[in-house]
Amino acid sequence: MAQNSFTRGLDVLIAIARNGQVTVAEVADELGLATSTAYRYVRSLRDYGLIEESQGVYVPGWRLMEISGEHLTHTRLAEISGEYLRTLTYQTGETAVLAVRAGSHAICLRQSVSSAPDHYAFRINELLPLYAGAGQRLLLAYAPRPIVEVALANLVAYSSATIRAADLPAVLAQVRRDQFAVSRGEFKEGAIAVAVPVFSNGEVTASLTIAGPSERCDNPDWVRRATRLLRAAAADMSAALEK
Amino acid sequence: MAQNSFTRGLDVLIAIARNGQVTVAEVADELGLATSTAYRYVRSLRDYGLIEESQGVYVPGWRLMEISGEHLTHTRLAEISGEYLRTLTYQTGETAVLAVRAGSHAICLRQSVSSAPDHYAFRINELLPLYAGAGQRLLLAYAPRPIVEVALANLVAYSSATIRAADLPAVLAQVRRDQFAVSRGEFKEGAIAVAVPVFSNGEVTASLTIAGPSERCDNPDWVRRATRLLRAAAADMSAALEK
Repeated sequence: MAQNSFTRGLDVLIAIARNGQVTVAEVADELGLATSTAYRYVRSLRDYGLIEESQGVYVPGWRLMEISGEHLTHTRLAEISGEYLRTLTYQTGETAVLAVRAGSHAICLRQSVSSAPDHYAFRINELLPLYAGAGQRLLLAYAPRPIVEVALANLVAYSSATIRAADLPAVLAQVRRDQFAVSRGEFKEGAIAVAVPVFSNGEVTASLTIAGPSERCDNPDWVRRATRLLRAAAADMSAALEK
Repeated sequence: MAQNSFTRGLDVLIAIARNGQVTVAEVADELGLATSTAYRYVRSLRDYGLIEESQGVYVPGWRLMEISGEHLTHTRLAEISGEYLRTLTYQTGETAVLAVRAGSHAICLRQSVSSAPDHYAFRINELLPLYAGAGQRLLLAYAPRPIVEVALANLVAYSSATIRAADLPAVLAQVRRDQFAVSRGEFKEGAIAVAVPVFSNGEVTASLTIAGPSERCDNPDWVRRATRLLRAAAADMSAALEK
């Protein structure tokens, strides 16, 4: 009996982690539980820091990374980033994303989703290609050479705007010079994204991105302001990481 | 009631993850549970892959990394490495260790502990300095330059044999040339360790080490044989990772 209760709770934990971001109703539905039952588990898991809640949506918690032996910097990033991401979304009205590199992919570690109906967003822990999109390409620009070669060898055109292999080396050199990347509809059609690096111990450990629909955001003023806000937030996050 | 059962089970999970490697009796003692109760939780956690068992000792499981969004390569390494590590210990009688870099530290991801009474071992998820000890230095040799600078700036002498800052650049260059590192009593007095890199996508993602007491192991034949066995295991692990 007690065991059934325990494994049911573990099922809730795993369902949330697997989905990346879900509501309690979705978890209850997936597992065939009463919403009130699912909610009781969710509350315990949140109290333990194993999951986190943001606007009714649950994501894997930083505590889960901590106890799994996850890269300490990533754990700390997950822990501190919520506030910075929410502030960026408040300031711009658009989705803010924190991504890290995981081998030859980027991973959406945390995000703050815009409340605009035409917003762009990833899933938490979603695996992304390193060459398409501003935040991902920024991580690629600072990756070791073998990773760049893997990216080149596996390049898929997500849209007509996805960068071509022949152009990639020059583009990455430019990103390193500017410490800044911008993309237009490379990964998702109709989106514009601006990204800057987050440093820890002098190493780029994450990219911080603001993404929105081109119609609303693709103008020099928006890009300039987004870049300025991102740089300030990234500097604060770097300082917090090194404390 | 059901909730109490659930949180008690979470306490077991977290205690095992925190300790890195413990027996059921130790967990029961720490949490004030009957051993039979602790064992029931442990069995469920093991069934879920959230913890793993080796010779009566429990460690965080690869599934825990998977659901926390851990670096995919590390998850896969944790999943496949047990067999390779056990074989190395069987072949040499000494402790075999798989370590990965996490920012400016190394982490003991998995190990197979020698049954010899005078063996050397780490804890799972133990944080280690990158400059002291063969497996750690091997990771440092392939780390980005800022990480090397952090290591240099924070160098602590663990023993009279800990490498000096002035010697580090030349030693790291040598490690990269040889794709091999050996250490004698740098981190733990009286130990000798031999380490080789594990590659994934051309990038060094882990170090594979055999460590034992100098008295038994510090002779050219042992070092040569250990290196040969490590290279074969590392090559097989690289191939498995890229499958």
